[in-house]
Amino acid sequence: MENITENLADKLKEYAINGDYPFHMPGHKRAPLDSFLNNAYRMDITEISGFDDLHHAEGVIQSEQNVCAQLYHSESAHFLINGSTCGILAAISAVSSWATLKDTLLMCSNAHKSVYHAVQICRLKTMFLDPEETSIPSLYAQIEPKQVQRILEQSFDKIVGVVITSPTYEGVLSNVEEIAKICHLYKIPLIVDSAHGAHLGISTYFPKSAIEQGADIVITSLHKTTLSLTQTALLLTNYGLDEGLMEYLQYYLTVYQSSSPSYILLYSISRCVELLRLSGEQRLNELRMALSNFYAKVSLLKKLKVLTKEDFETTFDDSKIIISTKHANIKSQELFDRLREEYHLVLELVSIEHVVAIVTMMDSGKALDGLANALITIDSELDYTLDQGNLSSYNRKREFAKTIFEALNDEREELLLKHALGRVSAQYLYLYPPGIPLVIPGEVIHSDLLEIVNCYQINGLSVLGPASKESNYIKVLCETKLT
Amino acid sequence: MENITENLADKLKEYAINGDYPFHMPGHKRAPLDSFLNNAYRMDITEISGFDDLHHAEGVIQSEQNVCAQLYHSESAHFLINGSTCGILAAISAVSSWATLKDTLLMCSNAHKSVYHAVQICRLKTMFLDPEETSIPSLYAQIEPKQVQRILEQSFDKIVGVVITSPTYEGVLSNVEEIAKICHLYKIPLIVDSAHGAHLGISTYFPKSAIEQGADIVITSLHKTTLSLTQTALLLTNYGLDEGLMEYLQYYLTVYQSSSPSYILLYSISRCVELLRLSGEQRLNELRMALSNFYAKVSLLKKLKVLTKEDFETTFDDSKIIISTKHANIKSQELFDRLREEYHLVLELVSIEHVVAIVTMMDSGKALDGLANALITIDSELDYTLDQGNLSSYNRKREFAKTIFEALNDEREELLLKHALGRVSAQYLYLYPPGIPLVIPGEVIHSDLLEIVNCYQINGLSVLGPASKESNYIKVLCETKLT
Repeated sequence: MENITENLADKLKEYAINGDYPFHMPGHKRAPLDSFLNNAYRMDITEISGFDDLHHAEGVIQSEQNVCAQLYHSESAHFLINGSTCGILAAISAVSSWATLKDTLLMCSNAHKSVYHAVQICRLKTMFLDPEETSIPSLYAQIEPKQVQRILEQSFDKIVGVVITSPTYEGVLSNVEEIAKICHLYKIPLIVDSAHGAHLGISTYFPKSAIEQGADIVITSLHKTTLSLTQTALLLTNYGLDEGLMEYLQYYLTVYQSSSPSYILLYSISRCVELLRLSGEQRLNELRMALSNFYAKVSLLKKLKVLTKEDFETTFDDSKIIISTKHANIKSQELFDRLREEYHLVLELVSIEHVVAIVTMMDSGKALDGLANALITIDSELDYTLDQGNLSSYNRKREFAKTIFEALNDEREELLLKHALGRVSAQYLYLYPPGIPLVIPGEVIHSDLLEIVNCYQINGLSVLGPASKESNYIKVLCETKLT
Repeated sequence: MENITENLADKLKEYAINGDYPFHMPGHKRAPLDSFLNNAYRMDITEISGFDDLHHAEGVIQSEQNVCAQLYHSESAHFLINGSTCGILAAISAVSSWATLKDTLLMCSNAHKSVYHAVQICRLKTMFLDPEETSIPSLYAQIEPKQVQRILEQSFDKIVGVVITSPTYEGVLSNVEEIAKICHLYKIPLIVDSAHGAHLGISTYFPKSAIEQGADIVITSLHKTTLSLTQTALLLTNYGLDEGLMEYLQYYLTVYQSSSPSYILLYSISRCVELLRLSGEQRLNELRMALSNFYAKVSLLKKLKVLTKEDFETTFDDSKIIISTKHANIKSQELFDRLREEYHLVLELVSIEHVVAIVTMMDSGKALDGLANALITIDSELDYTLDQGNLSSYNRKREFAKTIFEALNDEREELLLKHALGRVSAQYLYLYPPGIPLVIPGEVIHSDLLEIVNCYQINGLSVLGPASKESNYIKVLCETKLT
């Protein structure tokens, strides 16, 4: 056979000795946490006697899940080896089976694509909660409890469950406590996608977790902000969850996860929970000190701006460092690239007018000093500009002609995006990260979508579709043009 | 917090230095294949620039998938990090969306539970293909092409796709070539669950693979019989697959897999494909020699019997070593335990009248000699018995009152299994391994089910239900008793 020019395994080996500093996921920051994995193949076992079965846990896995539940103040914890993705699919499938006579999910419009996927699989209708705006047009903020109240008042008899994201990718938290109270008045379960909040609930120096605030089902990614390997997550349930709903949850976790779960991933969850239990609070308290120093330093920036709690009308988890380029004569992509190339600091995300660094308990004060100093130096070389004249908001009201399920199963054709105005989308378009769809199947394509896609593209951000990688094209339903 | 008495991580570390020999999965047999994983946390990255994106592969991952497709004689290969499970879910969801006006899956009744889960998610009706019987009552054999022909003739206009398992857990292959031809006459896609056949298609000393025989979509577990880490698998598609169906496949692979795929799992796939490409054929040719010696030796057994190709009316992959206890005065569980305790040989599976050892290219002639010698010694201490008087067959005709989807979403109550005769099941019951359901939601409970469950239980095999671990109980639908 021919020679392979590129090989993933070799590239990964090479990258392991690369000196870039990761201000991005995973949260363990590639530190040699444990020499266990020196022996990975040796420990990559199957369900042999004594090692329990993730899908019917009653031995060592169950006893660790109990310890984990206690750590996170939840009634139960389920280890996930297919990421938060499978937890989201399982939670929505479960409420949908449980409330079988209802047909609508009330969800935040800035949900991760897995929420939309679950809606499609479960053939649900949707009602949307739109996040509040911030000073940065592409940065979504919190869901207001009064919005939830208004919709449930009118439509509680149709709604299988409520799904919100808190914290968001950028660390913005909603008032889960109030929202949970409203949901419980109507006996509707509240599911919170806390993929970015696995470090919450451990130290009082950081915001309360969604479980502590009364959410019924919480999904959280251990790898994003704590110490486990990528693709590991938790599904947590709160006290008093209906038993029938719990049975559906357990069933669907079996459906959406491999029947041959990786003991290497389970190992890393086990070790992560132990480290959090023994030293998580102390590590997070130290991180609070380091963050305080960092935010004091960067308050001196003149053109770049690091957002602080004062910039939000809601709780903000400032272990997400959001750097705005709105009033500096530098594009966000250029800032990202300069930090990487000149300072070997690799950030997590670039958006239109901001970049994000993810900081975890594995980051030292020294690393944060390095980031602060780099920002101060770059800032000193920039000029102040007025707003760069992008859109005032990337928030869109979605209008639907079909459910996601219907639209995915209908006849479709491919058009140039600019010719698709007024047509019904038969596909998703999204940025990754963060993986929040810009348009979803069944949605009517309005001009604001075209403007937003255009804005991302001229800023060098790639908008991803499904099979076709040509993001200038979109699949739409074959039918007479809607207006 | 309290001390934990058991900790999975520590147990795994301990097991890594245990001296038991694994005649079970994973196929890498816990050999230190690669020192890479010494550095696992260091290489556990996210989709940083240059490392491609599993869900939109166009760089290094795509180039490796192409190499893998070539190795397996398929048109495309997709790396899976949520096991064969996600490949099965994606394949059935895809044919179901693609053939949206049809509503029935034609499937083998000995399918893995993930096939039944897909049926439920996609709200499909089912028609069943029953495997032929063998001399061992609990051992399923092949699906006959004429059965497929008979059903498609009558019902082709309802059927979204055909799903069979080949090879089975025990290495029995169906005539996929004939079955594929029949399916193609009716333009119906053939999906083959080849989870246990990732070593096929590489050496001519072993049976042909399902792809080589013309199946349209094949799912295979790399970790079961080749060299990758547990939870890794491939979805392969054959030449000429409809483009629309391919798009649905790609979409559903995104749905059922974590949006944060593990680069450690991807690394192990990359390394596995490379090893198979460079030395797979040679390793398998050597295994053929070792197996020939093994089968010659064990042909001398008097009471135990190791099944050979002559025991099947179809192709048999003899890298699965099936040891029958049917005519020996030893129970299969006792044989399994003696091999483990006295010889440190750990086999894969115990059934009522047989045990199974899984042999891969990582097993040496010496290891096989050890197994042969142990069997010869044990055999010399046993007496010949007549058939132990279990059931004559574990094959059951399933009768349905509801679809799986309907039954899972209906009102249910819990009964003692023995009181559930004539009722409609609202749950699954299965043995794991192999994870083939004994009863599924919507199925009418007949006396043969009770006999089979009883038989497994008196033989010390545990029958698993979903939430309730009490396998004497079963959830049934709340309605008037059917007869």
